[in-house]
Amino acid sequence: MSGFSARSDFSRTPNPLAEALSRHRARGLPLLDLTESNPTRAGLPAPEEALLAPPGACGYTPEALGLPSARGALAAHLTARGAAVAPEHLVLTASTSEAYGWLFKLLCEPGDNVLVPAPSYPLFEHLARLEGVEVKPYRLPRAHGFGLDVDEVEAARDARTRAVLVVNPGNPTGHYLHEGELAALADACARHGLALVSDEVFSDYAWDAEPARVATVAGRALPALTFALSGLSKVAGLPGLKLGWMHVGGPASLRDEALARLEWLTDTYLPVGTPVQLALPALLTQHVPRFQAAVLERVRGNRRRLFQARPADATWDVVPAHGGWSAVLRIPREPGEEATCLALLDAGVLVQPGFFYDFGGGAFLVLSLLPQPEVFAAAVDVLARVLSPSAG
Amino acid sequence: MSGFSARSDFSRTPNPLAEALSRHRARGLPLLDLTESNPTRAGLPAPEEALLAPPGACGYTPEALGLPSARGALAAHLTARGAAVAPEHLVLTASTSEAYGWLFKLLCEPGDNVLVPAPSYPLFEHLARLEGVEVKPYRLPRAHGFGLDVDEVEAARDARTRAVLVVNPGNPTGHYLHEGELAALADACARHGLALVSDEVFSDYAWDAEPARVATVAGRALPALTFALSGLSKVAGLPGLKLGWMHVGGPASLRDEALARLEWLTDTYLPVGTPVQLALPALLTQHVPRFQAAVLERVRGNRRRLFQARPADATWDVVPAHGGWSAVLRIPREPGEEATCLALLDAGVLVQPGFFYDFGGGAFLVLSLLPQPEVFAAAVDVLARVLSPSAG
Ligand SMILES: Cc1ncc(COP(=O)(O)O)c(C=O)c1O
Ligand SMILES: Cc1ncc(COP(=O)(O)O)c(C=O)c1O
Repeated sequence: MSGFSARSDFSRTPNPLAEALSRHRARGLPLLDLTESNPTRAGLPAPEEALLAPPGACGYTPEALGLPSARGALAAHLTARGAAVAPEHLVLTASTSEAYGWLFKLLCEPGDNVLVPAPSYPLFEHLARLEGVEVKPYRLPRAHGFGLDVDEVEAARDARTRAVLVVNPGNPTGHYLHEGELAALADACARHGLALVSDEVFSDYAWDAEPARVATVAGRALPALTFALSGLSKVAGLPGLKLGWMHVGGPASLRDEALARLEWLTDTYLPVGTPVQLALPALLTQHVPRFQAAVLERVRGNRRRLFQARPADATWDVVPAHGGWSAVLRIPREPGEEATCLALLDAGVLVQPGFFYDFGGGAFLVLSLLPQPEVFAAAVDVLARVLSPSAG
Repeated sequence: MSGFSARSDFSRTPNPLAEALSRHRARGLPLLDLTESNPTRAGLPAPEEALLAPPGACGYTPEALGLPSARGALAAHLTARGAAVAPEHLVLTASTSEAYGWLFKLLCEPGDNVLVPAPSYPLFEHLARLEGVEVKPYRLPRAHGFGLDVDEVEAARDARTRAVLVVNPGNPTGHYLHEGELAALADACARHGLALVSDEVFSDYAWDAEPARVATVAGRALPALTFALSGLSKVAGLPGLKLGWMHVGGPASLRDEALARLEWLTDTYLPVGTPVQLALPALLTQHVPRFQAAVLERVRGNRRRLFQARPADATWDVVPAHGGWSAVLRIPREPGEEATCLALLDAGVLVQPGFFYDFGGGAFLVLSLLPQPEVFAAAVDVLARVLSPSAG
């Protein structure tokens, strides 16, 4: 339509599953929702509300990269978790999504591109497009457990590529970067002058111990410019507070130039609220440990329930993974993802089809591991029944 | 530097005044700061902090355009002030600056331009540039009291112009749009297919009554797509809470398409925090009236002090204006804005030079009217002395 930009012209055609869900809801039919990933709706610990109104919360000290007190508390928190980072290399943002927006502006001219993993949570395409930036997928091979294959990254790169995005651990695939993969990737990035952007929002949620796992790229001596992204949305289960962050690392001259430019960019908006910055120290020490322990118990328990519900002769499998808030099921190619999701919805269970995450090479379903145990257990019983070969 | 975008390459050369200020501060010399416009540092009323942590503040309901409760309270507030607006035509943002970012994305391809007033607060150039958008100034003629002249707008327009920005009342010029100017401007916008963006952050701060004044473009039947912008930053003196808004108006089909696209854009970020949205109704009813009354008393009183300090034989004048938080002085062309600011700084008073706001056709100084009365009175006494022709 005349008068509006092409970059704001998003498709508005609902898919058949979304339409079926609307009808299901309109009829008031019961639903066990295994797509719920809003941590504030899963009966998990919340902080005291009074923490959100600390003394000085109505004040205002413009600090483009964030209040020194908040950056200091965050550096101490990350350092205690094993990443030795300095406050002056941390940038506060309103969310991880916003951090991507800053990075695309920092690194890309309109028409440049960034490499994004596939399969992955469908976050990057819209964010990039709004900044005039294109995304080019690189495959995470299933043979490799949906882990990173640097050859796939190299194959996807072209002359206008400015950055490689990794999600560590993958969402929903739950695979962490390993030391060897990171070394190869950082080397390739340095060689081609690309930035390495690591989305670590789920990094605190490892289900097991793994040798050579990379929990974060922050605080490591890598040859490429690196950005490690996270935020309260997943770390504290508080997406409504609008606080994310990035750590900037790599060769000192590149890192310092990136920080100087990010200071200019963020100074234009001053995006982060004062109350949440002042509340951050208390949230990190008092709330985060309690919340993360509860989430780990929840997702481990639900994953166990999923295995328990799986009959010995099942034609579907739980894809191996090591962390995060999701489980991926590999299902038979027939009748396919959409038909299976529609059949499950008819039976009162909502899950996501693999195509929502750009899975390839087979048929997949994605389940949130956050729902309350009773809901999850009831839902996976229905799921096992609907997916059983004798169900038809 | 290779590896970074051109749009993030901001100039970092400090001007002589900024350097002199740093030296002044480094020496610990006293300073009467008439550039202070941070409302939280001027001894004005602040809300109870407990208001910022209402029940449910730790929860999260993703609503791209803002929580219905917050949009409803805002519509009621604006309607009570005389603009009959519907909640569904309001979009919440993290700030007015961010609202500009959304609008540039909504309306412009990279390389398009928007028309911005000159003189005006230097806000648009960086915001536009970060979205790949250019700004083209149109002059606010001094002969017209720095009011809008639609011929200047028409003259600045070219084939890639997408929107006309007005600041109503002007910052720092303090002039409101008048009915006739708005009619001509809206007509020109409709004719050329341009959006009309009206920045009304200072609109509540009128110092006097004026016939035919336009306090807001919201809720009027205009022939062009219009956006009226404001936020808590100025309306409530709370920039740290990160809540702004825009009202979308104009022909129904354009308005509804704009709202649908803005819903997609904001859904990509979900930019506004939950606590401040839940606190909004109480802030609007309990805090805003008290704060605005105190500001009006402050700026009216300081303006009176400015006139009192002006000797009868002064070679400088206070530029006539009708609202806002600033005063503009017209000073002799010699020794010029920068030399005058440096002389004032030597005498312990900080003011802004006109070139900071892109004034033309003379020499000007800009003063904040927010400082505490004692500070302001002492500063304008110094100012009158330094500006006196016998001072040299
Ligand atoms: C991998 C990943 N990164 C980032 C985000 C967005 O986080 P935020 O709420 O901080 O924008 C999500 C949201 O689900 C996500 O899955
Ligand atoms: C005219 C005008 N509009 C907008 C803004 C920015 O407002 P916000 O803090 O909501 O981004 C300012 C800041 O001084 C301003 O002067």
